[in-house]
Amino acid sequence: MEQRTIDTTVVAYLDALASGAPTPGGGGAAALAGAMAAALISMVCNLTIGKQRYAEAEDEMRAVLDRSETLRAELTQLAEDDVAAFNRLSAAYKLPRVTEADIAIRRDAIQEALKRATEVPLRTARAAAAILPLCPPVAERGNQAAVSDVGVAVQLAHAAIRSALLNVEINLRTLNDPLYVRQVRNEVARLTEGLATEVERLDALVMQRLRAE
Amino acid sequence: MEQRTIDTTVVAYLDALASGAPTPGGGGAAALAGAMAAALISMVCNLTIGKQRYAEAEDEMRAVLDRSETLRAELTQLAEDDVAAFNRLSAAYKLPRVTEADIAIRRDAIQEALKRATEVPLRTARAAAAILPLCPPVAERGNQAAVSDVGVAVQLAHAAIRSALLNVEINLRTLNDPLYVRQVRNEVARLTEGLATEVERLDALVMQRLRAE
Repeated sequence: MEQRTIDTTVVAYLDALASGAPTPGGGGAAALAGAMAAALISMVCNLTIGKQRYAEAEDEMRAVLDRSETLRAELTQLAEDDVAAFNRLSAAYKLPRVTEADIAIRRDAIQEALKRATEVPLRTARAAAAILPLCPPVAERGNQAAVSDVGVAVQLAHAAIRSALLNVEINLRTLNDPLYVRQVRNEVARLTEGLATEVERLDALVMQRLRAE
Repeated sequence: MEQRTIDTTVVAYLDALASGAPTPGGGGAAALAGAMAAALISMVCNLTIGKQRYAEAEDEMRAVLDRSETLRAELTQLAEDDVAAFNRLSAAYKLPRVTEADIAIRRDAIQEALKRATEVPLRTARAAAAILPLCPPVAERGNQAAVSDVGVAVQLAHAAIRSALLNVEINLRTLNDPLYVRQVRNEVARLTEGLATEVERLDALVMQRLRAE
């Protein structure tokens, strides 16, 4: 089994990303941006829990931390799943197309692989979007000294959502199943609706707390 | 000498980011988001150079690649510089404050450390902003199969700029040198002005090419 990209060093990961090698790519980078966002929410929770000054927020921060750590694990895994989905799609495109039976098998394999390659960024966008509701409690009642880190989490989660949805879009263009495409487009619309406004609201919340003390 | 954070694995970096340890933090995460953006521009250049179909764009892509690789190296280093700047600031805060001379030395050391801690995210924002002008040629004339990766680069560069500027802001609040603060605020204003519009324009450019073929 090959080494997982997430088990290489940060420097080696960036080298691989920059290279012309088929993986890792933008889908994985989107997932890692989301994982960094979740990690920053966890960090602020960890810098709040156990501090006398923030004792009242302790239970809330523990609940947020539990959620942000689940999302971080999910997004880190999705960076790796993106590699697997890409490899499967590449393999499907390489199937023989000599006989009519070959061609039919290859076509179905490509469509199936495209669905998997769509699911990974869709799950990335969902998980990154689930970080945003964790930001207000942490920005408002978490350790004030780390509130800028909540702001970074907001920006990275936003970039992860939009980046992941671009990767969904590129796969939808080659998918032939109209019902599936319609379902996914509906979810993309739900994930996109009001997103920019929500990000600006969260950013304002962060700036307010940053200037508060 | 301690291991650099960028020489740990991606998984270990995310664990350290999520922990309550003083470093790495949001400033470093911003720099790494910028490094991923630069890496994706390099990737699309590498997927274009040497391809018969894109022979006309070859010289232009080589020039962009040279620039994106310089910015990637710079942003990767800035993730590490952020750790050093934070450590220096922590050390300054821990200086003795017994005598009046101690207090004066400590105050100056804190101010000097705050300037360094401001410079790192300011350079991060500058370098991430320098990625944006590289996006149009790559989105328009780079390998069309990888145009979504240019879109991801745009989102990550944008998040890196805004995140880095948040880290500039938090340091400016404790800085006492009005001339320096004014100079930095002017540069922050220049980096922010028209940014959202530019990101939307680049995103539209990517979507146009994505739907083109």
